[in-house]
This record gives sequence, structure tokens and C-alpha cells, in this order.
Amino acid sequence: MISRTTVRAVLEQVPLGADVTVFGWVRNSRTSSSVAFASISDGSCFAALQIVFDRARFSDEALSGVAVGSCIRVSGRVESSKGQGQARELMADSLDVAGPSGGDYPLQPKRHSMEFLRTLPQLRARTATFNAVFRIRHRLAMAVHDFFDSRGFVYVHPPLLTSSDCEGAGETFQVTTLPLDRVPIRDGSVDYTEDFFGRKAYLTVSAQLEAEPLALGLGSVYTFGPIFRADPSDTRIHAAEFWMIEPEMAFFDLDDDIALIEEFVKHMASVVRERCRSELAFLAEFVEPGLEKRYSAVLDEPFARVAYTEAVRIIGSAGADRVAGLEWGRPFSAEQERFLADEAFGRPVFVTDYPASFKPFYMRMNDDGRTVACTDLLVPGVGEIVGGSQREERLDAVVGRAREQGMDMDTYSWYFDIRRWGSAPHSGFGLGFERMLMYLTGMKNIRDVIPYPRTFGSMA
Amino acid sequence: MISRTTVRAVLEQVPLGADVTVFGWVRNSRTSSSVAFASISDGSCFAALQIVFDRARFSDEALSGVAVGSCIRVSGRVESSKGQGQARELMADSLDVAGPSGGDYPLQPKRHSMEFLRTLPQLRARTATFNAVFRIRHRLAMAVHDFFDSRGFVYVHPPLLTSSDCEGAGETFQVTTLPLDRVPIRDGSVDYTEDFFGRKAYLTVSAQLEAEPLALGLGSVYTFGPIFRADPSDTRIHAAEFWMIEPEMAFFDLDDDIALIEEFVKHMASVVRERCRSELAFLAEFVEPGLEKRYSAVLDEPFARVAYTEAVRIIGSAGADRVAGLEWGRPFSAEQERFLADEAFGRPVFVTDYPASFKPFYMRMNDDGRTVACTDLLVPGVGEIVGGSQREERLDAVVGRAREQGMDMDTYSWYFDIRRWGSAPHSGFGLGFERMLMYLTGMKNIRDVIPYPRTFGSMA
Repeated sequence: MISRTTVRAVLEQVPLGADVTVFGWVRNSRTSSSVAFASISDGSCFAALQIVFDRARFSDEALSGVAVGSCIRVSGRVESSKGQGQARELMADSLDVAGPSGGDYPLQPKRHSMEFLRTLPQLRARTATFNAVFRIRHRLAMAVHDFFDSRGFVYVHPPLLTSSDCEGAGETFQVTTLPLDRVPIRDGSVDYTEDFFGRKAYLTVSAQLEAEPLALGLGSVYTFGPIFRADPSDTRIHAAEFWMIEPEMAFFDLDDDIALIEEFVKHMASVVRERCRSELAFLAEFVEPGLEKRYSAVLDEPFARVAYTEAVRIIGSAGADRVAGLEWGRPFSAEQERFLADEAFGRPVFVTDYPASFKPFYMRMNDDGRTVACTDLLVPGVGEIVGGSQREERLDAVVGRAREQGMDMDTYSWYFDIRRWGSAPHSGFGLGFERMLMYLTGMKNIRDVIPYPRTFGSMA
Repeated sequence: MISRTTVRAVLEQVPLGADVTVFGWVRNSRTSSSVAFASISDGSCFAALQIVFDRARFSDEALSGVAVGSCIRVSGRVESSKGQGQARELMADSLDVAGPSGGDYPLQPKRHSMEFLRTLPQLRARTATFNAVFRIRHRLAMAVHDFFDSRGFVYVHPPLLTSSDCEGAGETFQVTTLPLDRVPIRDGSVDYTEDFFGRKAYLTVSAQLEAEPLALGLGSVYTFGPIFRADPSDTRIHAAEFWMIEPEMAFFDLDDDIALIEEFVKHMASVVRERCRSELAFLAEFVEPGLEKRYSAVLDEPFARVAYTEAVRIIGSAGADRVAGLEWGRPFSAEQERFLADEAFGRPVFVTDYPASFKPFYMRMNDDGRTVACTDLLVPGVGEIVGGSQREERLDAVVGRAREQGMDMDTYSWYFDIRRWGSAPHSGFGLGFERMLMYLTGMKNIRDVIPYPRTFGSMA
């Protein structure tokens, strides 16, 4: 067995004066006339550990192995630090280089651009920025599970391989074992009887439709897994593969749904603020100076709420530059959404009851016959992070809306079944994990909150 | 907002005599001369709640709505139960049918075959068996996260879309946005410049290779997500889409790896045994009478450990019927693995140090030059549930092995980079979530521990 003490334990747990052996990667190093310093990280915490080498005891040749990027093993004594910036340091007794690093190591102790770092996903986790981001990603994921588990929700795993494309074709990936250079054709069409599933298969764009029947048995369920959209948009907020959280709750109406979303978003922000102080301090210094304000906007007061029709009026009265394309019955532009969150309300705002005309068939029709019981949550600086609705539980209504939208009724008969037998009011929502992470870390590009991002034209 | 009390709260929390309103699906119902009974489930716990209707207060017509499969809302008083099998019941004051269910409801209160239930994934979660299985699936998933989070691991999300097929072609799904009925061909080959990523893309068969670089920065990481194998095997243990847990740890040798696997497997079994008593009692009665023994085999003593070479000797001395195909340098048959776990050791056993000849390039070569530092964990009744190894951290050795196996060296250069700069000893393993779930629930077919199973030729 490998015997070592983690950097976290050295900094927080072992008694001063203890003799320990640590492993870690050298973040940076410097030399004075009598001593050499190296700061190492081993992934056990965000902080690095300073190692002090007495040059009278270590030869220049030995110290030359302490190069940026190398992995070293050091035994020594834990002492109070005389320098700034850390309470403790390690006074080295012995040194081994476990994995050397030549001068060609691509990450040097200076500012690298995010674009450059994206070309090195296999090394990004060794930088302080990505160390912070991936640690917050972990804590946020744990916060998701804690939130739902403590409320009696069941974590479910709907399939990613699906035969129905939830929200309209054109943005789905097809999955196949057919040889693309000799696709079997019969009567002018692809012969799917030879494909793995014997039929056409897609990657899912949403787990919602499969989650709903599980909620209509298990009561409250949630998903937390990858989703795929073949959207050929090359922007800072679009990824082809990302993670979503999609809870579905039986016996929930839209008000229940909205109350749960607010509680959930506040929970996530509060866990990250509480548990990731070092990471947030670093990001506020080097990435997003206004980061603290985002947490205040989420945590310090109730979210606002406004119906779509009223939101149209508010935007309309805000001046000519806001009203381009504004018309009841049309979706808001991204700029209009930002105006609502950033200026009109200045905090997260639920926009509810959008016109049915541009919303999916599964949202519950309101009594006015022209709006649906749905909500988007808009947050300052980012825009939409959650979309939710009460689901149409009335068989005739949901079948009628699906037919109106030209859907293949046979493909969805299993979905309608839960309204055929033992229907119940139910609601749900979807939250984009990476957008929430961008909001909470201040990272500007979705590529920089995902370990190996997949975007249009790029699979680095 | 919808106001209701959950079945769990009625059974465990509210004071006797309280007036409550509950919602739930009717599991079964019966009528005597003076009263009618219905047992309802709302997903909040495994147990159902018995409702008692005084026939003097409810008409036959009203009670006819209390049909199996319907969703009803009942207000009434919580009382001690006079009947067997439950401590409390609800004496009804009022009744609404939220979602009726006709006589054509497919699930009746009798034994249905698993094969029949697989045709109804949209209703399976309403049965007691799948209620138990999906609840245990949830608890097991939470146990996974608790285990690694409490040990300082970082939960990471490597991509499912990949350009490298980790363990050999032929069993991967291809992902594309090219139109299959008119695939663009240039110079006799598929022209991938028109595909979404501009190159050929697959669904991942393992997250390991992408997880390793994250461990070599974050220290200890784990994945928990879906994996895809286009294996055209139609057996009770093969699914095309399933979930795996793949931890990777820097500064871990094979002994550290084995100790962690044992601790992890014991943790999972112990959490399920402790937290899912009602579910396990039900499954032990109706699905797998020997279920308790499995938990004892895992929890009551240390796992066994044997090297491959010694295991060959043990099997060889066990009699003629075991030795078919037995030869040093060949993998064990499934039957030989079962013999080791079920008979030779009678408890979970780690088999270590397999011949390099049939193991992947990334496993660390032992000093003997012919075996590698790896392990499989075999458990009685199921066989292999974990495979792990110390990874080859020496650049020359890993590159040499990859070359021997004819791998495309350019495709994997990013992977070799972590041995090029700051290499460190590291190890990891993979555990099949559904196989572990089969072991802990006694379910015989992998299709019955997955909400919507995807298997060769079937996407119900």
C-alpha cells in the first residue's frame, strides 16, 4: 500500500511538528540564496501546500527535479509558516521525483487563455481555476441529490436511447450500428430491421416524458443525467452534451412547482456559498468580480413572479429599444428576458402562463383556452435557467393538443396511458446543470464548466 | 396549491385521530356487507395505506369509482387499524376520483409475469415489486455518492460522446447527424466533414480513459453515469445501456484499490440492508428467498483473495467437469468464476494478477513481465461485478503495450500525456450498477432493475 498524507490533512488535521510524506504536482517553485520553495497540489483540497527545501541539504541537481508540472514525493515536518498566504508549510527532509516534467510542460505559472486551456482537457484539472470549477461542480451535484433525497424523491434513470424525439426533429443525434458506407436500403428507405434495436434510435433531448409515468407511481422522482442536442449553434451557452435535472411530481400544481423551484435554486446557491469558500474567493478575484452579488440576488429575498401578459406590458412600456418584435403570442427575445431579470425586477423572476401557441403539447391548458400553466425562471446576467409546467393530465386535452401539433400518435400511446388509467394532477421542471454552474462560478463559457466539452464541430 | 398528506406521513408521523386528505392509486379493493376497503399507494413509501369506507355513508355508485388502478382523493380520520398487517388506517369521510380506471386497466391484483410487465414500462412503477426495486435503486445511488463524497472524491462527468472507442471496435454505437438514406461519400469513404462534430463519433463504452487525467489533478475522482455497449447478446445480464461507477485514484496501488473496492461494496450492502427493510422483506418473500444470505456473505467476513495462477490450480484440482478449457493464459469461463465464488471460497473473492495477454494495454505490467496488476471481484450467485487495476504509469511501458495491441497512437496521445508530465502511480475500477442491484434485490433479469431497458433488438 502507498503510505502518504493528503495536503488537506497537512493543512487542517495533523498536529504541528508531525512527520509526514506527501505526494503532489508542482504548481510553481522559486529559489532564494538559502532555501527553495515549491507549492504543490494533490487534489485533496483547493489549497496548495508550500514545501521548503534547505539548500544546504538538497543539491541543485536534486532541486532541478522540482519543476512545474512534475509529481514529487516529499517527507518532512509540518511547521507554522513564516511567509504570507498560508498558516502551515512542510520543511523537507527527503525528496523523490515520482513523475518528472520537462520544460515542454504546457502549463506554466502564468495566465493562460481559456481558449488555450480548452486544447488541453487532459491537463486543465491541474490548474487552480479548473480545480475550483470542478470542485464546485461536485458540490453542486451533491446538493442536488441531498435536496431531493431529503424530500422523499426517488432518483430515476430514464433511457438516453429513445425511439421518440421529445421536442421535434432536426436537433437530435441518431444512434446506429449500421455501416454508414453501405447502409441497407429497402424500397427506397433505410432498412432498420438490420439496426441494433430493429428500429430508428435517437439520443434523448429530455427525460421528461419517460419520467412522468415514474412519478405517477413513485410520487416524486428526479433525473440527473446527460442530455443531447444536435443544435448547430456555436455560442458560449450551447453544448451538444450537457447534464440536466428533471424532477416530476404527482399531486403538484403550478404553484407547488414554482415553490419547489425557488427552494431548490436557493438550496444549491446556499450549499455552494457555504461549502466552497476558498474556491469562490479565488473565482471572485480572478474570474468574476461581481460573484458575491449573484449569491445575494438568489438568497436574500423572494423571487419575483409575473404572468407573460403582464410581462409584455412591462417590456412595452420600457422604451423603443426593448420592443423590437414584441407582440402577444410571440416568445421573448433573449434581450427581453435579460431586461426582465436584470432591470425590471433586478432579481430572479418567474414568468408564467405563456401563450399555448409556442409551447409543447404536454403543458396544461389554462381556463382561458389560450395560455398554459407553465413557468420559466430568468436570472440576472444569465437569462433562463429553468423551464417547468403543470402537465396536461386530461386525456382528451393532451391527445387533442398532440394531434394539433402533428405528432405521431402511435409513438406516444404509452405516454397517454398514464392519463387513461389513474390520472392525477402533476408537474415538473428542468434545470440546466451547466447554466446553473456558470451562474454560480462566473465562468463565461459553457465549455469551461465541463471536463471534456462537446460542441458543434468540436470534440477536443 | 394542492393540499394533501402523504401516505408515509399518515403511517408514521401525524397523530392518531388527525383529519387528513390523501391522494393515491388503488392497489386493490374489497367489500364486505357493512364496509369497503381499498389499499392505496402514493409513492411516498413502500407501504400502502388501507382506507375504510362505511357503506352506510358511501353509495355503491360512489364506491364503484374505487377501482384498481384509479387515483382517488380521500379525506378522513387516521385511526388504529383493527385488521392484520397494518397499524393504522384511514376512516373515510369524503371521496373523489381524480383519475378513473376502467376494467381494461392492465395491472390487476394478481401475479403478473415479469415478461408481461416489461411490455408496460409506463405502469411497472405502480406495482409493489417495481416500487421496491426502484426505491432500492435510489437508495443504492445515494449510497454511492455518500461513500465517495465523504472520502473527498470529486464526482466528474466525462463525455458520453467520444472519438475513441476505449476497448476495441465492433461493440460501439455510432452517433451521427448525417442522413442515413444519403450518406455523403468522398473518395469511396464516408465524408465526416459534414457530420456534427466533423469526425466519426461513438457512444462511450467506459469513462475510464477520460477519468484518469482528472484524477491526475483532482486526486480522487469517480464517475456515475450511463455506458453503452452494442453487444448483440440477448441474455439476462446484458443491456445495451446501463450505469457504471468508475473511480480513479492518484497515489493508489493495487492493494489500495482492492481495499477500497471491498469497503465500497460493503458500504452499499450495508446501507440497503439498513434503510430498505420493508422492500427487502417483500423481495425475500416474493422474489428471492435466499436474499438475506447474500447480505451476510458480503457483510459478515473479509472477502477472499487469490492470484490468477493459484486460482488455475484450485480449479484444476476440483475435478474433470471444471477444467474444460482451463489453461494458464486463458480467461476463466463464467462457470469457472462461479465455482470460485460459490464453492471454492463461498464468499466474494478478488482474483488478481491475470495474464497480460488477454488484458487491456492500460494495466500495469508486473515484474514477472507476463501478468498485470489487476483484479476482478467475483460474488456468489452472480459472478463478476467489479473489474479494476493499477494503471501503467510508465510512459514507455504504456506506449509499448498500446503499440503491441495495434492501437491508433495519435488518437490516444492526449491519454499518454499524463505519463509524459508529472506521472504518478494510480489505480481505478469499474462497478456495474445494475449487476450490483440484481445481487442486492434478487431480481433475475437486468431488464427488471432498469426503468426502460434497452437490449439487443428491443426498445420497449
